Amino acid sequence: MLRPIITLTTDFGLRDPYVSEMKGVILAINPKVVIVDITHQVDKFDVVMGAYTLASACPYFPEGTIHVAIVDPGVGTKRRPLIIQTEKSCFVGPDNGVLALAAKNMAIDKMSIYHVTNREFMLPSVSNTFHGRDIFAPVAAYLTTGRSPFEFGKEIHRIMSPDFSKTMKRKNLLEGRIIHIDDFGNIITNFTAKELENAKIQNKLRVKIGQVKLTVKLCKAYGDVRKQQPLAIIGSNNLLEISVNRGSAAQKLNVHVGNKISIYTR
Amino acid sequence: MLRPIITLTTDFGLRDPYVSEMKGVILAINPKVVIVDITHQVDKFDVVMGAYTLASACPYFPEGTIHVAIVDPGVGTKRRPLIIQTEKSCFVGPDNGVLALAAKNMAIDKMSIYHVTNREFMLPSVSNTFHGRDIFAPVAAYLTTGRSPFEFGKEIHRIMSPDFSKTMKRKNLLEGRIIHIDDFGNIITNFTAKELENAKIQNKLRVKIGQVKLTVKLCKAYGDVRKQQPLAIIGSNNLLEISVNRGSAAQKLNVHVGNKISIYTR
Amino acid sequence: MLRPIITLTTDFGLRDPYVSEMKGVILAINPKVVIVDITHQVDKFDVVMGAYTLASACPYFPEGTIHVAIVDPGVGTKRRPLIIQTEKSCFVGPDNGVLALAAKNMAIDKMSIYHVTNREFMLPSVSNTFHGRDIFAPVAAYLTTGRSPFEFGKEIHRIMSPDFSKTMKRKNLLEGRIIHIDDFGNIITNFTAKELENAKIQNKLRVKIGQVKLTVKLCKAYGDVRKQQPLAIIGSNNLLEISVNRGSAAQKLNVHVGNKISIYTR
Repeated sequence: MLRPIITLTTDFGLRDPYVSEMKGVILAINPKVVIVDITHQVDKFDVVMGAYTLASACPYFPEGTIHVAIVDPGVGTKRRPLIIQTEKSCFVGPDNGVLALAAKNMAIDKMSIYHVTNREFMLPSVSNTFHGRDIFAPVAAYLTTGRSPFEFGKEIHRIMSPDFSKTMKRKNLLEGRIIHIDDFGNIITNFTAKELENAKIQNKLRVKIGQVKLTVKLCKAYGDVRKQQPLAIIGSNNLLEISVNRGSAAQKLNVHVGNKISIYTR
Repeated sequence: MLRPIITLTTDFGLRDPYVSEMKGVILAINPKVVIVDITHQVDKFDVVMGAYTLASACPYFPEGTIHVAIVDPGVGTKRRPLIIQTEKSCFVGPDNGVLALAAKNMAIDKMSIYHVTNREFMLPSVSNTFHGRDIFAPVAAYLTTGRSPFEFGKEIHRIMSPDFSKTMKRKNLLEGRIIHIDDFGNIITNFTAKELENAKIQNKLRVKIGQVKLTVKLCKAYGDVRKQQPLAIIGSNNLLEISVNRGSAAQKLNVHVGNKISIYTR
Repeated sequence: MLRPIITLTTDFGLRDPYVSEMKGVILAINPKVVIVDITHQVDKFDVVMGAYTLASACPYFPEGTIHVAIVDPGVGTKRRPLIIQTEKSCFVGPDNGVLALAAKNMAIDKMSIYHVTNREFMLPSVSNTFHGRDIFAPVAAYLTTGRSPFEFGKEIHRIMSPDFSKTMKRKNLLEGRIIHIDDFGNIITNFTAKELENAKIQNKLRVKIGQVKLTVKLCKAYGDVRKQQPLAIIGSNNLLEISVNRGSAAQKLNVHVGNKISIYTR
């Protein structure tokens, strides 16, 4: 690639110099890199949110993109730095699950995983508090200069998975969870469009979230209901969302990530 | 252009993967594009604030820049996706007024407007919730590859305008509105420098905002009054601002966007 | 440099069009520039925080990088616009201390300072409220086009320094200050690793912050103590930090930037 792309997903926030230090390190190794922020506002230490965010964004990037994700409460302990190579993309970050969902989604056939140990591809002095800058940024940058993943360390075969909740069928209920609440207050669940289809839910959904029961129309657009009215919709991730037209569903229903959500199938 | 520029103005926030998905889509179509964020923190669904922000920023970008603006409460409904071509710039976004002010300002002579309908320039699967990623980002990216606006859809002649308030003269008063409050708390009004000049206001302003009356000096710099003192100043947009030196005027005066502001002319 | 780098450090926030206007101005002068945000969330008017942030980040950028820093409560008054040229980097911003710490750190031998007065390198119309866009952005951009710093104005020899607190030794105490609290709530002090070493502090620290006394282990990693437990650590800046594993030390100890911190040496 003439202009290799590195994306960054972290919980560092944008107030401190940390993100820019990573960018400086990358550009010092390969000034041709185009750096794209996915987000730096993952909730602090929330590996599952980091994994969800990265997995949502990475399908839209071109082949050959290198994705760095750092939500890393174990920085400086024995958790391993990883490179995961899939057909289309490459992932760099700690072995705590933050990369696993995205990598699995992007691996049509298989993925190769490497435990990064080669100090040649790290900053000369590695701190115990900021591996984003001292290990992950330079590793990603060197990957754009034609170095092969196996040069960075040994191939390994097992990595940590993020703790994602699965949906369940139970009598007349589909049970799932709220996996994300976006900045608009849209409630994103782990029900796929396919699961609703299989359960023959097409038009109206009877839903229970927390202590609230409501019936919502499965809409094609937010604007299909009146302002401030709730609706159900298949979101841009192909997942069921509970939303409010021009309002915040999460606020209106007073719910949070992790809350259980049930759909009545009859 | 060797490195075409696309700017982004949205109300998506920076916490979710949405903005980065648009950037991935753009770079997958044309990896040479330089993407510049204008802001992603337009107040949710606030088309007027989006229009103001885009119109403020776009005069500073080089000729040929493509500006994408998405504040789009009507996503998925019948509102039309637009390309507006002016002499200097090109604008891409929904037909709800968010582009209109900027386009009008940039069109010395005339503008050409196209209703985007050609699916060839959209993602293969278009969601009902995220046209930023599925329509507007790819349309902007294809515009940088030498495709002409008329290839995207039919030329049209009428578009929506944002609901901007105008100033009025009434007896001994100039009446206007607060159109923006910036992150410093500066109160930006819709009075132009020219209007003050015509009303022969030069030195001191007697102003009424909400229930508060105050007299402020028309200053050349914030530092012309003591700390925490209010002042009037012609801001960087050539509009009258009410400010507080090293403080927040909006907080001090407890005012909000849309509030009426009157200036006594005698 | 094929792709010259300009970094931006400001207190403008990301909500308003201001930062993007600077970027438009830079790209209009030199479309090859790569612009990297250090941060735009310096606390409003906090020159010391701006100076700390810039000084932290700039060592990680490649040689030839131009750093623009604008925390500028005196905009429009007589404070001078500066270019500071050091061996490795170049700094552009107001003469109020915001550049001084970074420039001093990057100057192995000496630095040359210029008072920018040449209108040729400013926007045609210079406002009194936004020198970031009208003076500093174009000056930085012209520096990337091969213009020499002395073309911008006269060489000068004295500039303002930011008001940084120094550490002191007093009987059985080392006395310092909290100079930054990061987004994780880590408390960053002005004690260097060297100072602790000289005071023979190795294992446990008895610390007084505000009215709170605590004993903390000097750890190698946040994960060396249990969740929510406090610790001391040499941070990525080589400065002593008081942290809480997977929590916010600043919140737990209820302390703020500027607070005194004392370490008992025996």
